[in-house]
This record gives sequence, C-alpha cells and structure tokens, in this order.
Amino acid sequence: MQAQPSSQPYAGKTAVIIGGGVIGASWAALFLANGMKVIVSDPDPEIASKVKVMIDAAMPALHDLGYPATDHHSNLSFEKDNSVAVASADIVQECGPEKVEFKQCLWQSIEAAAPAEALLCSSSSTLPASLQDARMVDRGRLVIGHPFNPPHLMPLVEVVPTPATDPAITARALAFYTGVGKVALEIKKEIGGFVANRLQAAIFQESVYLVSEGVVTLDQLDDIVTSSLGIRWATSGPFLSFHLGGGTGGLRHFIEHLGPPMETAWRHLGTAHFDDATKEKLLAQLETSYAKSSFDDLSEARDAKEVAVINGLAKVPAAG
Amino acid sequence: MQAQPSSQPYAGKTAVIIGGGVIGASWAALFLANGMKVIVSDPDPEIASKVKVMIDAAMPALHDLGYPATDHHSNLSFEKDNSVAVASADIVQECGPEKVEFKQCLWQSIEAAAPAEALLCSSSSTLPASLQDARMVDRGRLVIGHPFNPPHLMPLVEVVPTPATDPAITARALAFYTGVGKVALEIKKEIGGFVANRLQAAIFQESVYLVSEGVVTLDQLDDIVTSSLGIRWATSGPFLSFHLGGGTGGLRHFIEHLGPPMETAWRHLGTAHFDDATKEKLLAQLETSYAKSSFDDLSEARDAKEVAVINGLAKVPAAG
Repeated sequence: MQAQPSSQPYAGKTAVIIGGGVIGASWAALFLANGMKVIVSDPDPEIASKVKVMIDAAMPALHDLGYPATDHHSNLSFEKDNSVAVASADIVQECGPEKVEFKQCLWQSIEAAAPAEALLCSSSSTLPASLQDARMVDRGRLVIGHPFNPPHLMPLVEVVPTPATDPAITARALAFYTGVGKVALEIKKEIGGFVANRLQAAIFQESVYLVSEGVVTLDQLDDIVTSSLGIRWATSGPFLSFHLGGGTGGLRHFIEHLGPPMETAWRHLGTAHFDDATKEKLLAQLETSYAKSSFDDLSEARDAKEVAVINGLAKVPAAG
Repeated sequence: MQAQPSSQPYAGKTAVIIGGGVIGASWAALFLANGMKVIVSDPDPEIASKVKVMIDAAMPALHDLGYPATDHHSNLSFEKDNSVAVASADIVQECGPEKVEFKQCLWQSIEAAAPAEALLCSSSSTLPASLQDARMVDRGRLVIGHPFNPPHLMPLVEVVPTPATDPAITARALAFYTGVGKVALEIKKEIGGFVANRLQAAIFQESVYLVSEGVVTLDQLDDIVTSSLGIRWATSGPFLSFHLGGGTGGLRHFIEHLGPPMETAWRHLGTAHFDDATKEKLLAQLETSYAKSSFDDLSEARDAKEVAVINGLAKVPAAG
C-alpha cells in the first residue's frame, strides 16, 4: 500500500513543521529523505543545532529502510515566525505543545498566512482536531495526522478527521502520508487516544497488573511479549490472528466456540494503579534489568531491531 | 538466551507426545528438528498419516530458522498405549483434550509407567498443573510447558509450576525448552490464561470494542497493529518501550509525568461482548477483507512473515 521509499512523489514540495521537538525533527528527517524542502518553525534560539543533531541521527535508519541519500542540510531551513514560514507551504505538520488555546490561535494564524491549497495537519495524540479548529474560518481544512513514535521509522499514521473535515482533505492527507512511505489509515470517529494508543494502554494495564501481582517481573513480561505476541502482531493483527486461530472455519468458528471463554477472560482481566507499592516494585525491577544498560544503547538496539523487522517483512510477498 | 538451532543438546533423547493434534504435531516437528526421537501417542487410527502431513508442512520453516535437515521420518514413531509409549521417555509433552478428569487419569498412568527421571510437562493453557496432578504420587514432578501457537515457530514457552512443583523440575523444564531453541520463561504464580493469553485478551477486547463502535473496520485495526505496535513489541516489550519513551529519565520519568494520563486512559477503555450486532458487524467486514483469501494462503503468508521477523531480529546484536 505505502509508496516505495525510492519513488519520492512529493520531492520538491515544501513541508513546514511547527515545533522542532523529538516528533517534529523525526518528521523533518522523513520529509527530507523524501526529497522535500523542510522549514522548521520554533521559537527556541538553539533550534537549528538541536534539530540537525536529531536529523543526522535519524538518517542512517532511513537509508537502511531504502530512502535514498539526499542533501538534507541544503533542503532544511528555519523560520521562527510561523506566519512567514507557512507562506510557501504545501503541507503544515503541527508538532507544538499539547495546549488547546495555543493550537487554536496557531491554526487561526496559519490559515490566514498559508496558501489555500496547503494541507494542514496536527500530530496531536491528545487534542482531536475538533478541539483545535475553533478559530478557523474554514474548519473543513484541519485533520489529525498522528504518527507512531518515532515517525521516521514507524509506518503508521492515524488520519483523524473531525465531523467538519472536508472528505477531500482527509483523502489528500491519506495520499500524502502514503506517498512519503507511511501506512496511513483513516480513523472514522474521534475517540480519546485514537486506536493505537488505546490498544497500547489496554496491554499496558494488564502488564502493570501482572507485575504488581508478582506473576512475572517487568523484564520477563517484556520477554514474553517479544517472543510471542510481538512477532504475531508484527505479521498479522488481532482479528487475522484469531481468524487463522479458528482453523478453516475462521473467525466465525472462533467466535462460536472460543467467544464465551474469551468473554470470561475479559471479565477476569486486571486493573492497575501507579500506587506507591507498584511504583517501587517496577523501579526496583528496572534497576536489576534495563537500568544496567545506557539509554543510548537501548535506543539504538531498538531502532536497529525495528528496521530489521520492517525490512524483513518487506521481503515477504503478500497473501494471494 | 535460547540455544542456536544447530547445537542440538537434546539430540538422541526421546520425547513422547500425548495427543497428535495441531499442537502435538508442531511440538513433534520441533523436537525432530532437534535430532530427538519422537513417539506420538494418540488413539486415532489415522494419526500417523495426519501427523506426518503436519510435520512435513512445518519442516521448511524450521530449516529457514536454521535447524539442520534431519531424517525426521525415521526418528518418528507411534504408540497408541500411552503407558507403553512413555516407558523410554526423557520428556513427556502432553497435548491431550482440555478435560480435567482425562488429564488427572493420564498423569496417574504416565507417572506409573515413565522413567523416574522423565520430565513431565503439560501444554495446557486452560488447566493449570495444580488441577491436573490430583492422582499423582509425586505432585512435585508436574509442570506446565505452555507454547505459543505454532510451537515450532514461536519462541515463547511459559513454564508454570504449581506450589507443589519441585524447583529442580522447573529448572529442568526451563533448560530443556531453552535447549531446543525456545525462549522459556517461568511464570511465578498460577493465574488463569498465564501471561501471553491474558495480554492477548486485553488487546482483543479493546479491538472488538473499537470495531463495534465503528471507529475502524477489523482489517484497518489489524493494519494499525502491524504497522505500529506489532513492530514495537516484536523488538521491545511494553515496559522497555515506555522506559525509552520516558527519554533519558526513563520509566521513572514516564510514571511521574505520563502515569496520571495513562491511568485516565485505562478508565476509558472499552468493554466488549460478542452480541449479535457485534458478531454480524465483524463477520460482514470479514467477508470484504480476509475472507477473499484462502485459509492456506493467509496461513502461509503469516508463517513466512513470522520466520522473516524472527530471522531479521536474530541478526541484530543485543544492546550493550
């Protein structure tokens, strides 16, 4: 579905990134690797050096994923004033603070200054576009384009329109993210956390519950996930997994025969709280496991593994 | 942690598989690929031909994972009478029907007939060993060795002792599964569903909820998982993910700053039921997505992708 990294259908177009934090810099690296011009707008006087360090760190993984080497420094510029920055924008990717007033004023200003054809997208995971668009003249223009961290590596972008979003805008956003190599999916209703973060919260609550109950330690729980469910879900999601788990009778057979015990399992799932005892247990177990490695070593290993999984999967032909 | 597939520390040992269904045949393929002798005990008069078909189907993936080609047919035999079958067993891997009376009588019979040193393991996911060992003379001998389907491909084995299990038996079971190439982890307390299936139930409940609410379709939900969380969890489990998500402050920073919104997200997770409307919606969406491909095509693609993920990850050096 997503574009080949080498095809670059948006090469030469201009992306304006509002906010040069970790997410903004990761988007910037992705867009630059697609041959786009990138303008980062951020009030931090040190922003250029900070963003360049993050982009340089992201580029090797992008090359490993098949994006061609580009002269990414010459296509990158900075402009503090967001009204000036967006004047030539083909797409605005907002990655600013998660404050509703800030975003409402920002979009008012951007709408007035950007070309009428510019695509306006927010990376927000916590503020749906219907909370951000209050001061816009044309509320049909705004849509969420929520990446999964880190955006330059993870394929998913959740595209979340509001009830007011023009369907043509949603379609353009889906086409844009697909064109830069992402798996872009439309979320049909605004809901807190959208989809991926809700699923992540569900598994994390049970994870914290099981560790707090002493069933396994936190690193054992992670090893269980990476040696079973993670491999399964990297290849086929929950529904396809149970469709195949139902044998040749598929999901219908699964629901009829294993639906009732599954419903019982749902009723017996745990609830978790970050109370003091749980916090202490988690942090003590962290000391004897991950805390023994440095943040950089763990991050680099994770990124290398994510690239290996994505590239490994890319070589497998799709089902007939 | 797990053995290299080529090392074969259990070559020449005898594994007796009780029950030649899908799980039993998959275990048989794994043990044969480790150079072990395998005796399958099953009352089905057609069992030999059924098991051989499943073993032949499993072998290419085992070879892709690095297990050497073995003369797996000459090391495979069948014996209906389980008391006769276990007389020469080094390990008994029980994969019989999930009926408590059946398993209690089975272990009574096996304990009487098997060598005193034979390792006795049940593959059960629903009947903890403390429900199975009621008629055994030495209840310290029994332990759960619960694989993740399919056992020949998926690394995880959950080793679940009862309060009565001899710790030396638990240690031997962990060593055995590790020796045949698995990631074997001890679950410290018996709990319904153990760990992996509980986590799977948690994500599946939220998945069914989101589809039933019309937020996404079932195939979109799967695409979201395979393009984000699956890749993340194939490389690092929930705790390591949030440890790194907390930046250089790690999990402590995460819990302090993002713990409260995470607890709020937990309270807003959905509950699901396989009521008629939900079933109809799921099965209608299935018709326009997965049902268009054959079971065999989908299964083969999934297995090929799982091998690609496992092999891709095996090439990445561990974190320092």
